[in-house]
Amino acid sequence: MSDATTLNANLEMELREVGHALADAARGAILPYFRSLDMSVDNKLADGFDPVTAADRAAERAMRVVLANLRPDDGVEGEEEAPTPSRSGFTWVLDPIDGTRAFLAGTATWGVLIAVNAGAAPVFGIVDQPYMDERFVGGFGRAELHHGGFVRPLNTRPARTLDQALLMTTFPEVGTAEERAAFERVRDQVQLTRYGLDCYGYALIALGSIDLVIEAGLNSYDIQGPMAVIEAAGGIVTDWQGGPVHRGGQVIAAANVEIHAAALELLRG
Amino acid sequence: MSDATTLNANLEMELREVGHALADAARGAILPYFRSLDMSVDNKLADGFDPVTAADRAAERAMRVVLANLRPDDGVEGEEEAPTPSRSGFTWVLDPIDGTRAFLAGTATWGVLIAVNAGAAPVFGIVDQPYMDERFVGGFGRAELHHGGFVRPLNTRPARTLDQALLMTTFPEVGTAEERAAFERVRDQVQLTRYGLDCYGYALIALGSIDLVIEAGLNSYDIQGPMAVIEAAGGIVTDWQGGPVHRGGQVIAAANVEIHAAALELLRG
Repeated sequence: MSDATTLNANLEMELREVGHALADAARGAILPYFRSLDMSVDNKLADGFDPVTAADRAAERAMRVVLANLRPDDGVEGEEEAPTPSRSGFTWVLDPIDGTRAFLAGTATWGVLIAVNAGAAPVFGIVDQPYMDERFVGGFGRAELHHGGFVRPLNTRPARTLDQALLMTTFPEVGTAEERAAFERVRDQVQLTRYGLDCYGYALIALGSIDLVIEAGLNSYDIQGPMAVIEAAGGIVTDWQGGPVHRGGQVIAAANVEIHAAALELLRG
Repeated sequence: MSDATTLNANLEMELREVGHALADAARGAILPYFRSLDMSVDNKLADGFDPVTAADRAAERAMRVVLANLRPDDGVEGEEEAPTPSRSGFTWVLDPIDGTRAFLAGTATWGVLIAVNAGAAPVFGIVDQPYMDERFVGGFGRAELHHGGFVRPLNTRPARTLDQALLMTTFPEVGTAEERAAFERVRDQVQLTRYGLDCYGYALIALGSIDLVIEAGLNSYDIQGPMAVIEAAGGIVTDWQGGPVHRGGQVIAAANVEIHAAALELLRG
């Protein structure tokens, strides 16, 4: 009962269950606001368009209450509130609504991003789409989609050449001029590029229906949830130099090492 | 029993019920293929990327069988098969899967488009998203969303200035160079532009969550279903000169006449 394997399995199960509890809490906080007409919106960035909704704040608050109850010694890094330091060695990284613009436009391509790490890359993560009742879950050696009461395994697609590949990113205007040029070198080689999916693009890599997502300027909370899911489903997520990216920045997520290598070569120019 | 009003009400009810029967038939034909791995895909256009799936063909076939049984004298214009001439004066215009690229990428922004007309603009139409169980229905004086067993009325949003408006289109590369320049004059004035939604953008106008969709190079079957829904919800759909657009071409769909006029002025240059 007290050997390390048993303890680890128990801890994994606990972190997994806490992850689902967080996603459930966020759903409850967010869904009443989705497509409601009296949504309170303000702009976080004076020079851009980055709306924060009441839903965003309510969901992070609800998730922090769950953690305070279930894992009070864990750290918390969220998009909306100041970080809580970890006393347990574990830290939860939360983005209550990734894709606030999609949320405002009424499209179900936003998501709740949840990850837990032990000081480095995430060990477990969730990408949840409450309106579609889709929860992409990955870590501790398995990845699965929960949808409509069913659970199915997630596996990224096998290697294919770039000219057969599907690429996604959120905006055609990717990052700086230099970053955009790098992105366009990949875009010009793939079969099809689609825009505007926010975190849902990462979920589609885990689902096995696309090959690549390339983005720049991400934060920890934008990437740790998707990263855990994609890696557990057989994919790879790095920065544009092939290094660790759990702190954010320039991100490439790929279905397999072959397409990752091919796209990385183009990104480097 | 035989006065014109009664006949019209019966006919409207019949066309409405046939529309739902068509959408149900298409759902049944398409859903088994969505996100399946053995999807047979070929390219319709040698120089582009316009995949036609087995689902696309199966759905049009299923809808044509429904019409042959329920409305054998009506005409049929579908994306996949040769047109059937009308003997009744009514013609059904069908796009079994609008957004085949979205379908292939696994995103639920494709839709089944259904409309019926009496020789000109559609009198009734449907935009159906089978995976999300969302059916946007409009015509004969009312518009509604059927979702998860509930029916709610659809109303476009009230007028707002362009700098507060949300614009959608499928591709950043809109039409010809001249068309793209016209599109970008509007894009540069609105608060936010989103890409990649296919027919779902039109549904979002009817839902009241966005203001404008601008596209070029559309066919009849791309626009008649969305047009009927948006107009019944209080919006307006025309070509870029403000004229009728039920035969396709350059399309602007707007939540209200004010934002339509403001965008049209920019499109004309």
